[in-house]
Amino acid sequence: MTKAGIINVTGYAGVELARLLHQHPQVDLVSVTGRSLIGQKLADVFPHLADIDLAIESEIADVDVAFSALPHGSSAEALLPLIKKGVKVVDISADFRLKDAAVYEEWYGVKHPAPELLDKAAYGLPELHREEIAKSSIIANPGCYPTSAILALAPATQNNLIESDIIVDSKSGVSGAGRTLSLTVHYSEINENASAYALDGHRHMPEIMQELAAPSVLFLPHLIPMTRGILSSCYAKLKKGVSKEQVRKLYDDFYNGEPFVRVVNTPPQTKQTWGNNTCLIYPSVDLRTNRLIVISCIDNLVKGAAGQAVQNMNLMLGIPETTGLDYLAVYP
Amino acid sequence: MTKAGIINVTGYAGVELARLLHQHPQVDLVSVTGRSLIGQKLADVFPHLADIDLAIESEIADVDVAFSALPHGSSAEALLPLIKKGVKVVDISADFRLKDAAVYEEWYGVKHPAPELLDKAAYGLPELHREEIAKSSIIANPGCYPTSAILALAPATQNNLIESDIIVDSKSGVSGAGRTLSLTVHYSEINENASAYALDGHRHMPEIMQELAAPSVLFLPHLIPMTRGILSSCYAKLKKGVSKEQVRKLYDDFYNGEPFVRVVNTPPQTKQTWGNNTCLIYPSVDLRTNRLIVISCIDNLVKGAAGQAVQNMNLMLGIPETTGLDYLAVYP
Amino acid sequence: MTKAGIINVTGYAGVELARLLHQHPQVDLVSVTGRSLIGQKLADVFPHLADIDLAIESEIADVDVAFSALPHGSSAEALLPLIKKGVKVVDISADFRLKDAAVYEEWYGVKHPAPELLDKAAYGLPELHREEIAKSSIIANPGCYPTSAILALAPATQNNLIESDIIVDSKSGVSGAGRTLSLTVHYSEINENASAYALDGHRHMPEIMQELAAPSVLFLPHLIPMTRGILSSCYAKLKKGVSKEQVRKLYDDFYNGEPFVRVVNTPPQTKQTWGNNTCLIYPSVDLRTNRLIVISCIDNLVKGAAGQAVQNMNLMLGIPETTGLDYLAVYP
Amino acid sequence: MTKAGIINVTGYAGVELARLLHQHPQVDLVSVTGRSLIGQKLADVFPHLADIDLAIESEIADVDVAFSALPHGSSAEALLPLIKKGVKVVDISADFRLKDAAVYEEWYGVKHPAPELLDKAAYGLPELHREEIAKSSIIANPGCYPTSAILALAPATQNNLIESDIIVDSKSGVSGAGRTLSLTVHYSEINENASAYALDGHRHMPEIMQELAAPSVLFLPHLIPMTRGILSSCYAKLKKGVSKEQVRKLYDDFYNGEPFVRVVNTPPQTKQTWGNNTCLIYPSVDLRTNRLIVISCIDNLVKGAAGQAVQNMNLMLGIPETTGLDYLAVYP
Repeated sequence: MTKAGIINVTGYAGVELARLLHQHPQVDLVSVTGRSLIGQKLADVFPHLADIDLAIESEIADVDVAFSALPHGSSAEALLPLIKKGVKVVDISADFRLKDAAVYEEWYGVKHPAPELLDKAAYGLPELHREEIAKSSIIANPGCYPTSAILALAPATQNNLIESDIIVDSKSGVSGAGRTLSLTVHYSEINENASAYALDGHRHMPEIMQELAAPSVLFLPHLIPMTRGILSSCYAKLKKGVSKEQVRKLYDDFYNGEPFVRVVNTPPQTKQTWGNNTCLIYPSVDLRTNRLIVISCIDNLVKGAAGQAVQNMNLMLGIPETTGLDYLAVYP
Repeated sequence: MTKAGIINVTGYAGVELARLLHQHPQVDLVSVTGRSLIGQKLADVFPHLADIDLAIESEIADVDVAFSALPHGSSAEALLPLIKKGVKVVDISADFRLKDAAVYEEWYGVKHPAPELLDKAAYGLPELHREEIAKSSIIANPGCYPTSAILALAPATQNNLIESDIIVDSKSGVSGAGRTLSLTVHYSEINENASAYALDGHRHMPEIMQELAAPSVLFLPHLIPMTRGILSSCYAKLKKGVSKEQVRKLYDDFYNGEPFVRVVNTPPQTKQTWGNNTCLIYPSVDLRTNRLIVISCIDNLVKGAAGQAVQNMNLMLGIPETTGLDYLAVYP
Repeated sequence: MTKAGIINVTGYAGVELARLLHQHPQVDLVSVTGRSLIGQKLADVFPHLADIDLAIESEIADVDVAFSALPHGSSAEALLPLIKKGVKVVDISADFRLKDAAVYEEWYGVKHPAPELLDKAAYGLPELHREEIAKSSIIANPGCYPTSAILALAPATQNNLIESDIIVDSKSGVSGAGRTLSLTVHYSEINENASAYALDGHRHMPEIMQELAAPSVLFLPHLIPMTRGILSSCYAKLKKGVSKEQVRKLYDDFYNGEPFVRVVNTPPQTKQTWGNNTCLIYPSVDLRTNRLIVISCIDNLVKGAAGQAVQNMNLMLGIPETTGLDYLAVYP
Repeated sequence: MTKAGIINVTGYAGVELARLLHQHPQVDLVSVTGRSLIGQKLADVFPHLADIDLAIESEIADVDVAFSALPHGSSAEALLPLIKKGVKVVDISADFRLKDAAVYEEWYGVKHPAPELLDKAAYGLPELHREEIAKSSIIANPGCYPTSAILALAPATQNNLIESDIIVDSKSGVSGAGRTLSLTVHYSEINENASAYALDGHRHMPEIMQELAAPSVLFLPHLIPMTRGILSSCYAKLKKGVSKEQVRKLYDDFYNGEPFVRVVNTPPQTKQTWGNNTCLIYPSVDLRTNRLIVISCIDNLVKGAAGQAVQNMNLMLGIPETTGLDYLAVYP
């Protein structure tokens, strides 16, 4: 059994990781840390984890693989000593996602704590970087929005189907905003409410651009009143002469055999991924304007965070990629 | 007092009209009809209308102004005899919205019942057609999505700010789908769920194109889990050399003095219009891609239907436009 | 026009009061205060109040009537100087509700700041204390839960219909917990969730007991995932020989002519009171166990707080009780 | 591998069973039937079941164990031939729950189709009838409300802690009302809404009385705006001299070792059971009125239906009771 630990378990991505790792047949979750609540039993703070008998510690114990759910900046710093010790790490934060330290500094407002490691980290989107992930021991787990956007558009950009002018209009459930209190996600404020935010630029934009190798992307996130789920509606101008059928065929081929991406025949719904690690993708063409429209759906806490982290861990450990992730979505 | 009647009161737009007309100081709601439930008291079917002492009839009584909340096709047919009698009418359905009967037939699949009247009908968006509405006695009340999209983009198209490539990504609350039962809006299906629909074209698209005089518009509607509200995120390529400040100034000027449109300084939220007749508009520019982004919010049942219908009635009657509509939004 | 002010406008009861007073035809809202946000424009903090041109002040201006939405303890203290100046006051907090200062101290954990005024204050439930309210200039606005419970049970206790053993099981929307941030009402925590709280006793219990003159009441509040509304299910053992018809008749008589209480013929729903000042009451009898069951519904922020406060103000000012409160519920 | 089939898979309990059986390590789901949609692939109708390669049939195939999610009446009839063939059956409907055919007829309005089998059926609440279930081949899977109420109160009734006067006030998520369309659970009607129903008696009441051996129970169900979950608040007069500590100790002992019941130290929340088979129970005492209060939470579709059905199947098959059910709740 592989010994796993979670650094900063106390947010939504952290506890979702705890849930998945506890249920993983080849992993023992042996240590969890927090920046607060230290000494408390995990089960007392999070009753749904009653079956996990661990206390929240200040320091991670001796583990084979460590997940960090710390905020950016702190995350890389906390992982450095583990990386040096040879522990395999999956960073849920943004610290190892951007290959260019200058871009990181521009968007995150801090100097990168370990720019020399950026080359060694794999961007943990298995559908694009499976082999690199398997060989790496530092995984930059993708952001939730980028996961939905990149999977939606990679078949188009890699097959050279589209001209530039990519627009990604994403709608996210509220858990994406985390467990930290704020008026924005106070129940009475966000229930029966919808809004756009980050109109001057969101940190997930450079991540999408990097992975799509796109010169420009307009990314606009929205908050809608549900707990889990991201629906991304992606628009791009189609090259002349590309038919709807060709688009569909290329998407089918691109994701053929992928365990966690399903190209579907009808517009997908976020609920169809609730609690599971699948990304649903529906490519279409608006014939009137000759635009590609791709709709993608994920559970932001699973394929958009903890589930993908486990998928990456499986690849690093050389065990079947779907291990511990073969749950159906919970419906309704 | 003006005598008003509602044809087919039993849907959500119909009962919202009943609520607003009952509270209107210069109107007596004297007659309501339905296609079912005939003979029942309105207050028994809709307990929130307990103060209205009317039974649901099969035929509209003698009125000065009639509102139709019938489905398209039936609506024009039901209004024709009233129009001939000189009754002022506001049609909540789509029957008089499209000026071109051929476009109507293409999108609605039926021959227009009264193409000769299309010229006499005013498109009931007061911010664009106030004078025409005041002179007309047939008002085509705009669709909910078009209201949000046209108000968001008219300042840009009329001021020649943008090149083509308009994309309207709208998110609607579930009441827009009406009171008719369907699995799509069965609570357990749509709660905690989001989806796009009508990817092959939605009937509100030609309406948006007509009013913006735009050669092409990509319009994609989404259903999100809330009862009321539409948030539209509109994208278009900005002409070169137009600054963010110019855009803002033109929007401010365009809607200067409008009682029911407010150009706001921060991204608006649908909840800020809950139960009231305002459209909130936030114009912005994505400097990286030189795109105009306009966010608009309305209550789909008020400014998107019943409230705008009352606003149109006020204009037709020559009374102050805000009469019976000066309620603040209900928050939270 | 009566000049009105709101002390501590920044919570949900406070802004709901601002909305109602702004729309009140015989009142000018001239001053609002806060403990934070001082100097900011009300419309900037609360966009739905855009039509109100007031800044948040630290001290209330010269007014004829003042509403306090401060927390208990602070509220009485802030009102004392106004009371001395002869300003009529409506206290939304609990400070003047309990007639017995010792009971107040027991439940609120502080000494009452002005026990000598308790006798002069009227408990602001107009259906029970209309005349007293009209003569008083200090109104203790009832709690939201007590409003729903007392109105549900007063006809039974006053007509001697029941033996003791009163149980009140109340379900509240989340806005009742206020605008202050807390994990309990963080969206992702309370959405798709229901829970009971205060099993060892809730401060609204002695208030219910006082007004029903009941020797014992078991009151258990619950939080359910909606913004507005309280549904109280009240149970009590019926005296022998009392028929269902007698119960119904007594309830009908008790509330005959009441503008804001409606005894209804089918179990009511909270949505039927959304945004309006009505309390819906459905008395029934479980014949198998000979128990009275009374279901009551209110909007916790209107009849449960701000609306009732306006109703009390109307009575104090000697103007028609329904002035500024004659809005229908907003549905759906 | 045991071959399992689901009769009438197309409702919410049916698809939840399909999800759980598909994930069960010792069972092959080999056949599913419906009364409609026959011939369609399960995965096309229910996209979350994409991994299950079965078509909806009109007749159940050859199986070792069959689950029926048919409505009462039809269910027993459909199961009879299978029972005769020696197939083990779990009936999700009410047909085998009530031991007295006359009580069944009184509450369900039809003659029981097989009264001679009532004695042979085990009431499938393992915590009360484990051994009987293991020996039986006809399991009456309990109703969702009864599961929550009986587990909450059985320790009290069996230990003779309470006098009569049991009141069960239950709050249910909307999925309990099923997938059949109705205005009651139309999204815009039930979102932001709460109501009580069945004030003249609910079919789950005799079931609760039977299992608690209680001479009288007042049971009142409520519908609240969430998809999954039941919270039951149970009240009963405590015998004199029973302390809070004694109550707690008896509950702890009663459920000691139970894999799917957890007696908790703080009031539980329905979300803590989302998607999992646990029942959380919090016993308390209101010292002022000497009443026992017990709060219980379940997921109505898991412990309240499909999960418990699998638990019963495990017992019948003689495999570990928790097999295929050891998932943590999905939070948030």
